[in-house]
Amino acid sequence: MDSAVCLHWACQQGYALYPLSFRYGQRHGLELAAAEAIVAALPVQQWLILDLPLDRIGGSSLTDPESIPDKNGAGSGIPSTYVPARNTIFLSMAMGWAETLQAADLVIGVNAVDYSGYPDCRPEFIAAFTTLANLATRAGVEGHPFRIHAPLQNLSKAEIIRLGLQLGVDFSLTRSCYDPHGSGAACGGCDACRLRLAGFAAAGLTDPIPYRYP
Amino acid sequence: MDSAVCLHWACQQGYALYPLSFRYGQRHGLELAAAEAIVAALPVQQWLILDLPLDRIGGSSLTDPESIPDKNGAGSGIPSTYVPARNTIFLSMAMGWAETLQAADLVIGVNAVDYSGYPDCRPEFIAAFTTLANLATRAGVEGHPFRIHAPLQNLSKAEIIRLGLQLGVDFSLTRSCYDPHGSGAACGGCDACRLRLAGFAAAGLTDPIPYRYP
Repeated sequence: MDSAVCLHWACQQGYALYPLSFRYGQRHGLELAAAEAIVAALPVQQWLILDLPLDRIGGSSLTDPESIPDKNGAGSGIPSTYVPARNTIFLSMAMGWAETLQAADLVIGVNAVDYSGYPDCRPEFIAAFTTLANLATRAGVEGHPFRIHAPLQNLSKAEIIRLGLQLGVDFSLTRSCYDPHGSGAACGGCDACRLRLAGFAAAGLTDPIPYRYP
Repeated sequence: MDSAVCLHWACQQGYALYPLSFRYGQRHGLELAAAEAIVAALPVQQWLILDLPLDRIGGSSLTDPESIPDKNGAGSGIPSTYVPARNTIFLSMAMGWAETLQAADLVIGVNAVDYSGYPDCRPEFIAAFTTLANLATRAGVEGHPFRIHAPLQNLSKAEIIRLGLQLGVDFSLTRSCYDPHGSGAACGGCDACRLRLAGFAAAGLTDPIPYRYP
């Protein structure tokens, strides 16, 4: 959902679009099928799906077939669904591709309001990555610095939904659940579902996707 | 060669060893066979080889089957063998694995003396990555900061070779060539070969590995 809003935001800003998705052993691989539909609705230059073996590193209930994601909602502390180094790895790959494309603008849907408490969603993480990107790359050294845009950084989930609707996002195409049913229905109980459902409720709207429970 | 010296350095320092290698589409995939022999010579806890699709991002003669690495030696500017974001991606994956292992110490063989001019080998890159790592992770947030060791950072290639010999590195097991012959012989002309050969010469030693030219 957040990524879809970001892609539409980048389109509205007039950027040429090169969305990047990752198959990283996530149990919610269904989000890649959703991404295909979202990408198909926009004038995208090139869409890349990269395979990353994050499941071989372990350390997360999101990539471990044996464990079950937190069902206790977003609370205090860093939950079991935290994937070690995930956003650092995602941004690093995006930075590499951007350098090849001679692109300067990266967009990521991190959010530090209605979020799960992941450390790599905070503004100070994005600022530190920007500093790193401009030291790590040919582009940075040669005076073409990267900009990292996090347009959802300070929005509530309800505000993200309203922004998405203004931008023309079809939320029925989006998926957020960490532990979807084989049918594709969302579980309704994981952190991602609870934040999403609360966001739609706060916006006075009904989430258009199917949920498993009645 | 630099990675082998680092692994022996970490062993001498008393660290438990979890070496990490990457199959990233490099034309010199032979270095993974060399790594196997180097790892086998030390008391290693676990060795992990991860696949990374850097060839799908492009932007380097090191991963592009169509192009030929620079043969003009280390000169000014960033050479074609620079792989966009490589060390950032490698360190990000290492950081994720370290977090899972509850390890705090990362070791990387970057060097800013006799090197190829890659921006992600400089001390300021390592410093920025350390800052990032401690903002990006559960470990950093919970007060167990990462340390990134670059024991070769300020050594000349000759000094790296002397250090390796003191530490017991068998340099006949190591490989550096970016464009090795099918037989395994080094080309002798790429940046990596030229820096290596010059280092052995400056140390008053003969490189024990086979080269293609007479």
